[in-house]
Amino acid sequence: MSLGTLDEVSGTISFLSDFGHRDEFVGVVHGVIARVAPDVRVIDITHGIDRGHVHAGAMALTRAVQFMPDGVFLAVVDPGVGGDRLAIAVRTPVGFFVGPDNGLLAPAIAMVGGADLAVSLEAEQFQLPSAGSTFHGRDIFAPAAAVLASGEAAITDLGPAVDLDAMTPLLLPLAEPAGNARVKAAVLWVDGFGNVQFNIAGEDLAALGLAPGDDVLVGIDVAEHRIEWGVSYGSVEEGEAVIHIDSSGQVALAVRGGSASDDFDIGTGDTVLVGRPDGGNRIEIRAVP
Amino acid sequence: MSLGTLDEVSGTISFLSDFGHRDEFVGVVHGVIARVAPDVRVIDITHGIDRGHVHAGAMALTRAVQFMPDGVFLAVVDPGVGGDRLAIAVRTPVGFFVGPDNGLLAPAIAMVGGADLAVSLEAEQFQLPSAGSTFHGRDIFAPAAAVLASGEAAITDLGPAVDLDAMTPLLLPLAEPAGNARVKAAVLWVDGFGNVQFNIAGEDLAALGLAPGDDVLVGIDVAEHRIEWGVSYGSVEEGEAVIHIDSSGQVALAVRGGSASDDFDIGTGDTVLVGRPDGGNRIEIRAVP
Amino acid sequence: MSLGTLDEVSGTISFLSDFGHRDEFVGVVHGVIARVAPDVRVIDITHGIDRGHVHAGAMALTRAVQFMPDGVFLAVVDPGVGGDRLAIAVRTPVGFFVGPDNGLLAPAIAMVGGADLAVSLEAEQFQLPSAGSTFHGRDIFAPAAAVLASGEAAITDLGPAVDLDAMTPLLLPLAEPAGNARVKAAVLWVDGFGNVQFNIAGEDLAALGLAPGDDVLVGIDVAEHRIEWGVSYGSVEEGEAVIHIDSSGQVALAVRGGSASDDFDIGTGDTVLVGRPDGGNRIEIRAVP
Repeated sequence: MSLGTLDEVSGTISFLSDFGHRDEFVGVVHGVIARVAPDVRVIDITHGIDRGHVHAGAMALTRAVQFMPDGVFLAVVDPGVGGDRLAIAVRTPVGFFVGPDNGLLAPAIAMVGGADLAVSLEAEQFQLPSAGSTFHGRDIFAPAAAVLASGEAAITDLGPAVDLDAMTPLLLPLAEPAGNARVKAAVLWVDGFGNVQFNIAGEDLAALGLAPGDDVLVGIDVAEHRIEWGVSYGSVEEGEAVIHIDSSGQVALAVRGGSASDDFDIGTGDTVLVGRPDGGNRIEIRAVP
Repeated sequence: MSLGTLDEVSGTISFLSDFGHRDEFVGVVHGVIARVAPDVRVIDITHGIDRGHVHAGAMALTRAVQFMPDGVFLAVVDPGVGGDRLAIAVRTPVGFFVGPDNGLLAPAIAMVGGADLAVSLEAEQFQLPSAGSTFHGRDIFAPAAAVLASGEAAITDLGPAVDLDAMTPLLLPLAEPAGNARVKAAVLWVDGFGNVQFNIAGEDLAALGLAPGDDVLVGIDVAEHRIEWGVSYGSVEEGEAVIHIDSSGQVALAVRGGSASDDFDIGTGDTVLVGRPDGGNRIEIRAVP
Repeated sequence: MSLGTLDEVSGTISFLSDFGHRDEFVGVVHGVIARVAPDVRVIDITHGIDRGHVHAGAMALTRAVQFMPDGVFLAVVDPGVGGDRLAIAVRTPVGFFVGPDNGLLAPAIAMVGGADLAVSLEAEQFQLPSAGSTFHGRDIFAPAAAVLASGEAAITDLGPAVDLDAMTPLLLPLAEPAGNARVKAAVLWVDGFGNVQFNIAGEDLAALGLAPGDDVLVGIDVAEHRIEWGVSYGSVEEGEAVIHIDSSGQVALAVRGGSASDDFDIGTGDTVLVGRPDGGNRIEIRAVP
C-alpha cells in the first residue's frame, strides 16, 4: 500500500503548536488559512505541546512527519515571538516547513532528507497587518503556509534566502556507553499514557547482546530493575512493567494498564542506565512498580 | 429534514479514541488516512475517553453513532494492543466498524442493527510496516478504515472472516427492581459538565408511576434526596438539582450551573436508588447540594 | 493579500462552544452537520470556553470572528438550555450567527457591523426530534447552521422574526479615569499562556502620555509595579514582565517564558490601575514577579 507522493497530496497543511485548546488560537489559524486558501486542507498534528517547549515540539514533529501527507508543515512553538529569531520557510523533499527558526523544525527536516532552500518571511504582502507582535502564527506563519500549500506563491516570493548553515539546530542527548554491557540513556518523551521513551533503539539493545524475551536491566537513580523485553504491553500482566520497541522504533518502558512514568517516577530529560542484568556487579532488584 | 443515507455520505470516517490531545497520535492517524485515501473525510467524535476505559469508549460510541454519517466508524480504546485480542472490521447496516475486539464496538453495532460479517485484520498489504507493536491505530486500524471508506478494498480483502458469535461482548449493568416503587440503578456516564446519567429511561420512571413535574427520590449512599423531574436545567433555579431526560433519552441528575457529580459525590459505576418518594419508609431529606 | 469575501467562502461554519473534548458533544454536532449538509466545512474556533461562561465565550468569538471565513458562526455556551431563552439565527454583513440569545453572540455581531434580521429557531422541520431538552447544539443549532451554510433554507424559513432591539446584550466593563494619569481597568481575558489582557487599548496608554519603551505603572491590589512597555515577550529577559499591545490590539501584561496570571495572582474580572508611574504619589515597587 502506497502512502502517496507530493503530487497526489499537495494542498495539505499539517499543523502542530503549543496553542492548546482553551483559547481560539488554533481556530483562528485555521480561519486565516481558509480565507487565504479556501481549498487547502489542514490536519492538526497536535496542539498539546507543553507551552514554550521547543524541544518537545521538535520531537513530536519528527515522530509525526513521515506519516503526514507531503505538503506544508506548519509548526509554532515560539516562546521568542516578537524577538529577533527569524520566521522561516524551508524547502525539503517532502514539501515546505514553516515556523520560527528556534530549532523546532530542524530534526524533522533532517529526518526527511534535509533542506535545499530557506527564506526569512519578510514579504509584507503575505502577512496580516496586526496591532501586536505576539501572534505570528496568525499573522505571518498561517498566510505563508496557505500560499505555499495553494501554490499562490513560490517560497522565494516570501522573503530573502537565508543561509541553511545558519539555521538554529536542536541539540539531542546522545546515549553513552557506561561499561559492563550498559549504556547511559536519556528519556526523550513521556506520552499521555505514561510510556517512557529512551534515546536508544532496538539495535542498541541487540548490540549489548540482548534479545526479545530477555530481562533488561533499567537503572533509575539508585534502584536497578530487571524488566522483560516483550512485544508490547500485552506481553505482561496488568500492572507489570515491560521494555518494548515503541511505535517510533525506540526502546521504551511501559506498565500494562498503568503509567510507567508515575510508577518509576521518571520524566523527560532524566537519565537511566540500560543494559544486561549480568553485566554489572551492583545488587539487582526485581521490578516492583 | 433527512439525515441522509449511506450513498450520500460515503467516504466519511468517524473516529473515536482515548489518545487525548497531548501527543501527536490523533494527528498521525489523520495523516495516514489522508495518505492512503486523500478524498476521505474524517470527523473526530472524541479522543477524550479515559485512557484504557473500554466501557466508557463503548458508551460514547453508542451515544454518538446515530448522529454520525453512515460510512466507517474507527474506534480505538485498546489497552491490550499487541496482545492476543483480534483487530477487526465489522459490516453493519450503517457501514463498517473498525477497532479492537475487546467489547468497544459491540453496543454501537447492536444499536445500529447488528453485524452480518466480521474479519480479522491480517492482510499485511493493508498495514503499515512498523518497528513496534503498540500503535495499531496508526499501523492497522487507520489503513483499514481508509481503504474501506474510499472503496479501495472490500472488507473481505482485509483478512479472514471471524465468527460473529465469538466477538467480545460488553456487559452493561441492568437496573433492578428494589421494591416500594423504586429501582436500583447505576451511573453509566458523568459528562464534562458533571451531569450524571443513569441506566434507566423515562419509561422506567413512568412505570413507577412518576410523571414530569413530580419529585423523584434519589438515594445515594445513606441519604435520600427528593428532586424535581423537570424539562431541563432551566426548570430549576441556579444551584438546584433536577432530574431530567437527557439528550440520550436516559434519566439523568443535573445541577443548574453546577456539577451534580461533585455536589452529590457520585461517579460512573456507582449505584443509586431511584423511585417514588412515597414508596419507601426511610426518612427523606430534601436535596441540599 | 485578500482575506476573501462571502461569495468565495460560503459553505463554512465556524463553531465555538464550551463542550470540551472529554465527551462526544463536539463530534456529534459535526456529525449532524455532515448528515444535513455533506458539503459544508466546519472550522472549530475553540471548544475550551469555561463551561457555562457566556462572557468568556462572547469575548473569544469577538476576537476570532474577523479572522474566520464569512459564512455561518455557530456558538453554543448555553447554561440556560431548555429554559425560556430563545434560540436564534441572526443575519449580519459577514453571514449568519446561530446560538442562544443570552448575550453570547452580541459583541461579535456588533463588531462585524450589526444585524438586520433575527429569527427564533422554532420551525420543527429544521430540528432533530429528541427525547431530551439539554442538547440544543445537536438538535436545534447544528441543523439550523447546516441549512444556512448549504443554502438549503433561508433564515426566514427557520422561524418567526424577533425584535432586534430585544436581543440580549452583553455588558462589558469599561475602563474609568482614576486621576493622576491613570485608569482603572479590568482583566478581560487570561489566555492559556497566562497572558493578562486589559480592557484598554494602546491609544488609551498614549492618551495618558505613555509611549513604547516607557515604564507603565500597573497597580494590583496594594502593590504598584513599574513594567516596561515592550514590543513583545522577546523585548525582555526570561522571567521578566512586559506590557505590550497584544494580538487583539489590547494592552496586556505578560511574563516571558512564564505566566503573568500566576506571577501577579490576577484573573479575569479583576481590576487594576494602569497609567504613568510619575502620575501618582504612592510608593512604587519595581516588578519582581
